[in-house]
Amino acid sequence: MSVDVSVSSQLPSASGAHKFLQRLGDRVERVQTCLCLGLDPDPESLPPGFTHDVPGIEAFSQLLIEAASPYVAAVKANIAFFEAFGSAGIAALERIRAAIPADIPFIVDAKRGDIGSTAARQAVALYDVLGADAITANPYLGREAIVPLLERADRFVFVLCRTSNPGAGEFQDLQLGDAPLFVHVARRVSEWAAAGDQVGLVVGATAPTEMATIRAAAPTLPFLVPGLGAQGGDAEAVLMHGPATAPPASSLAGGGLIVSVSRAIASAAIDAADPGAAVARSAQAWAQQLRS
Amino acid sequence: MSVDVSVSSQLPSASGAHKFLQRLGDRVERVQTCLCLGLDPDPESLPPGFTHDVPGIEAFSQLLIEAASPYVAAVKANIAFFEAFGSAGIAALERIRAAIPADIPFIVDAKRGDIGSTAARQAVALYDVLGADAITANPYLGREAIVPLLERADRFVFVLCRTSNPGAGEFQDLQLGDAPLFVHVARRVSEWAAAGDQVGLVVGATAPTEMATIRAAAPTLPFLVPGLGAQGGDAEAVLMHGPATAPPASSLAGGGLIVSVSRAIASAAIDAADPGAAVARSAQAWAQQLRS
Repeated sequence: MSVDVSVSSQLPSASGAHKFLQRLGDRVERVQTCLCLGLDPDPESLPPGFTHDVPGIEAFSQLLIEAASPYVAAVKANIAFFEAFGSAGIAALERIRAAIPADIPFIVDAKRGDIGSTAARQAVALYDVLGADAITANPYLGREAIVPLLERADRFVFVLCRTSNPGAGEFQDLQLGDAPLFVHVARRVSEWAAAGDQVGLVVGATAPTEMATIRAAAPTLPFLVPGLGAQGGDAEAVLMHGPATAPPASSLAGGGLIVSVSRAIASAAIDAADPGAAVARSAQAWAQQLRS
Repeated sequence: MSVDVSVSSQLPSASGAHKFLQRLGDRVERVQTCLCLGLDPDPESLPPGFTHDVPGIEAFSQLLIEAASPYVAAVKANIAFFEAFGSAGIAALERIRAAIPADIPFIVDAKRGDIGSTAARQAVALYDVLGADAITANPYLGREAIVPLLERADRFVFVLCRTSNPGAGEFQDLQLGDAPLFVHVARRVSEWAAAGDQVGLVVGATAPTEMATIRAAAPTLPFLVPGLGAQGGDAEAVLMHGPATAPPASSLAGGGLIVSVSRAIASAAIDAADPGAAVARSAQAWAQQLRS
């Protein structure tokens, strides 16, 4: 519980720091894909037979995991879809997490980061309680707000760089000197990474040009890529610019790339006679398209 | 549950849109202070007699509310300190929220904002389940990520502008054209506010010069100010630059200013023979210092 939150606190030593990336690389090698199953269960979008409440989203999440996990490199849960049901929703997420096979890295998409004393509690919430292997964080408060999330050498933080939403550019594209804000974020996070290899970037598949620019600015950083499928992102561009081009991530199977697909897989269950089989087929097809 | 998350979705109509600010102004008028009680219960910093677990942080939070609420304009809970105990911690926060007197606005410091479908679920989590009157949000994803948080006309969003942490300037102070990033955020949020009077800014008390600059750039916006007390912020500067200088917030008692004090009030309970009485005295002294 004692966490150094001073500005000058150092990133953890490199001992064990590769653990998340190694686990991810091992899994990518096994399944030959960078596909990540996204869990964003909206009670209004469940297939027939699932109730619009906690038991409904929990059962559907369990179905997705059971059907899709043979084909995926990782599982990512967006915590907001569980928080929306309060303590009962978080309890469901705790049970869902326990059902994810141990060799599949689990990412919690929470977009956290805060002043040191708060971020230290976020680390407990996400890593210790929910068992996240990796999380997402927002860069707006600076490196200092993310340091407490980097104090477990076997965990990993993907920092928002260029997000997948249509309005992402409002601040992210603002020009500062020679480059837009998102490129400054990519450069800074590359500097943070130099100390510990525990950080990567979130780069939306809906911005292929920006992804190429970010890859050039941050050749070493693993990318977590949302925005394929329902959001209309570009799979070809993701496979071209997503993998790291410099070590250590470039030497892993898949180059540290994780591509999250949520609604496009989940929606295969709608109107299917056998929802589990339909989800499995969809996951398999996405895995093939995102072959690493 | 049906929420319009399209990019073109409009801010709510002005009917009822002043409700949060009116409630806040009414309360400030009654207690004559802009002091907000902050709830950040760290299990390692509880007074003797409180266990380092959910019952301990819950009992201490209830003590703080009971002792301090006669003297405060609002209560702000930082959700991370409850999330750190998983579903049991969120269940405690749900009970704590129910104990806050109805005429005291309740703010959830969650720093949310996400792509539309996710932000809509965050709105459910924070407004409907936790009963927040106002929340905090991060600007990095742009206005589009905050619109779903503005769809209830009686609720309110404070957008991070210049935060109170020592490393806040890493990105926030980067210069874009004529002004640093945080001023661009203040200007944009002022534009968003024009449509609905439901947004304000988070401005740390640790940056008094920046606060003056932000007030000049955004004369209409209510400020939520953390960073006094344990973080060493400057109360005089806050009272000078914190209140809005243009309507509608400038016409409210206190000018829409809310100043959150957490650890400096909570720590009064440590080593006190009567922790409740010590907390009440500390809250009363802070309320006096932050007289509106």
